Amino acid sequence: MEDLSRLCIHTVTTKPWDIERSIDEYARAGAGGITVWRDALAGRNITDVRRRIADAGLTTVSTCRGGFFPSVDASKRKAALEENREVIAEAAELGAPLVVLVCGADPKQPLTDSRAQIVDAIAELAPEAEKAGVKLAIEPLHPMYADAKSAINTMKSANDAAEQIASDFVGVAVDVYHIWWDPDLETEIARCGDLGKIFAFHVCDWRVPTRDFLLDRGLMGEGCIEIPTIRGWVEKAGFTGFVEVEIFSTEYWSGDQAEFLERIVEAFKLHV
Amino acid sequence: MEDLSRLCIHTVTTKPWDIERSIDEYARAGAGGITVWRDALAGRNITDVRRRIADAGLTTVSTCRGGFFPSVDASKRKAALEENREVIAEAAELGAPLVVLVCGADPKQPLTDSRAQIVDAIAELAPEAEKAGVKLAIEPLHPMYADAKSAINTMKSANDAAEQIASDFVGVAVDVYHIWWDPDLETEIARCGDLGKIFAFHVCDWRVPTRDFLLDRGLMGEGCIEIPTIRGWVEKAGFTGFVEVEIFSTEYWSGDQAEFLERIVEAFKLHV
Repeated sequence: MEDLSRLCIHTVTTKPWDIERSIDEYARAGAGGITVWRDALAGRNITDVRRRIADAGLTTVSTCRGGFFPSVDASKRKAALEENREVIAEAAELGAPLVVLVCGADPKQPLTDSRAQIVDAIAELAPEAEKAGVKLAIEPLHPMYADAKSAINTMKSANDAAEQIASDFVGVAVDVYHIWWDPDLETEIARCGDLGKIFAFHVCDWRVPTRDFLLDRGLMGEGCIEIPTIRGWVEKAGFTGFVEVEIFSTEYWSGDQAEFLERIVEAFKLHV
Repeated sequence: MEDLSRLCIHTVTTKPWDIERSIDEYARAGAGGITVWRDALAGRNITDVRRRIADAGLTTVSTCRGGFFPSVDASKRKAALEENREVIAEAAELGAPLVVLVCGADPKQPLTDSRAQIVDAIAELAPEAEKAGVKLAIEPLHPMYADAKSAINTMKSANDAAEQIASDFVGVAVDVYHIWWDPDLETEIARCGDLGKIFAFHVCDWRVPTRDFLLDRGLMGEGCIEIPTIRGWVEKAGFTGFVEVEIFSTEYWSGDQAEFLERIVEAFKLHV
């Protein structure tokens, strides 16, 4: 898509840069938004970062990430709730309207238990998030992460959870990397739109072959995901927000980040 | 489960052994069945192998594998059909009642196209398979293989395809490794049983973490798959056939195979 004002970049995408450099470079490249990963805030005064983002003319789209709720151990579930309260407070301080949730899973218990604990935890946090003015987005993760990263692995599962929690402050983050393979994708994206729950839209690509479970995401256009088709479904479902580029890549992180950013902008124009 | 007469082992599980050694060792270990991977037949007289399996008191459960139907290139699709005719003929010669299909996917075209080509190809082969007395089992593969190995990635998708093809000789192979994460699993296994389509049941485990996309499958009990639960669903759906151990593992292949086979038998008794 040509409209760079809808381009948002996740700080993790250019991980070798610190938050200040990322802000400056994203703005210079013409992006309209930034999503801040919490590690980028380490040792920073959050009010200063907030001001720098505003001064650069960028919109803070979300922070990444909260979640990791389930555990066989009740004390760990309680600790996760506390941690997520801090994440919400930090997002509010930064002026981020949204926290993306990687919901978690505990391989030592059935997935059904993990899913129930996720719903319980988010339902408990929802009123607090509303009070802070920060929305929460359940991100379905690819089924290859169902062991230990998330028990929510399809749009249907995320929609079911969001519908059950029934808070205006709880919705879904649609990331093409996790859900592109799903035969029910178009239907469930439409349903998510009908529920008013599409809170975010993330893009990257699936490399063929993919060489690492976590750190080999592709730039848009270099893999097999039908990104423009999925963006079409998301927009048909009513979404008009930022299109967020979120790429974890050992390969790209090892190269020149300024050049990588140029390629991101080019790929955004040609393949999103 | 205690009943070893229902234990079937895939030759690929003990890949360092040749087919003759595998037959002898599986029989000695008390297994009732063997599934023969085609690479194990290279350079062999198939009638001799068939006799050796019978003499050892084993049942040939299936051969692996046919499939890989879709392509943007029509001549490649035609070649795949020819190849699968040979696979069916070979299975008939071996006395195998079933061929397992890894259906294929072409990352250069939409998944919907690949799925349509899969259904077309299997529908074309079904009468020939029936004539040969060999059934075909669509195996849904984990979504991490949706790029190039299979466009059929859930039990629902496999059920839909088998139902559409509507041949008594076309059904589904249920492999826990590929589908354990699916929230609709119980429902779709029941549906598969209602359709009379559960043709095979494969087990292994999902390691946490999994270190390789293909060759790091776990022995039953060392991962997070709820194997006894899933076996219960499959049997509730009417399946009474072999429980097939199919493990691809660089780690296990590099060790002593006789010791590995002992561990398989033990794991089968304790964790299936």
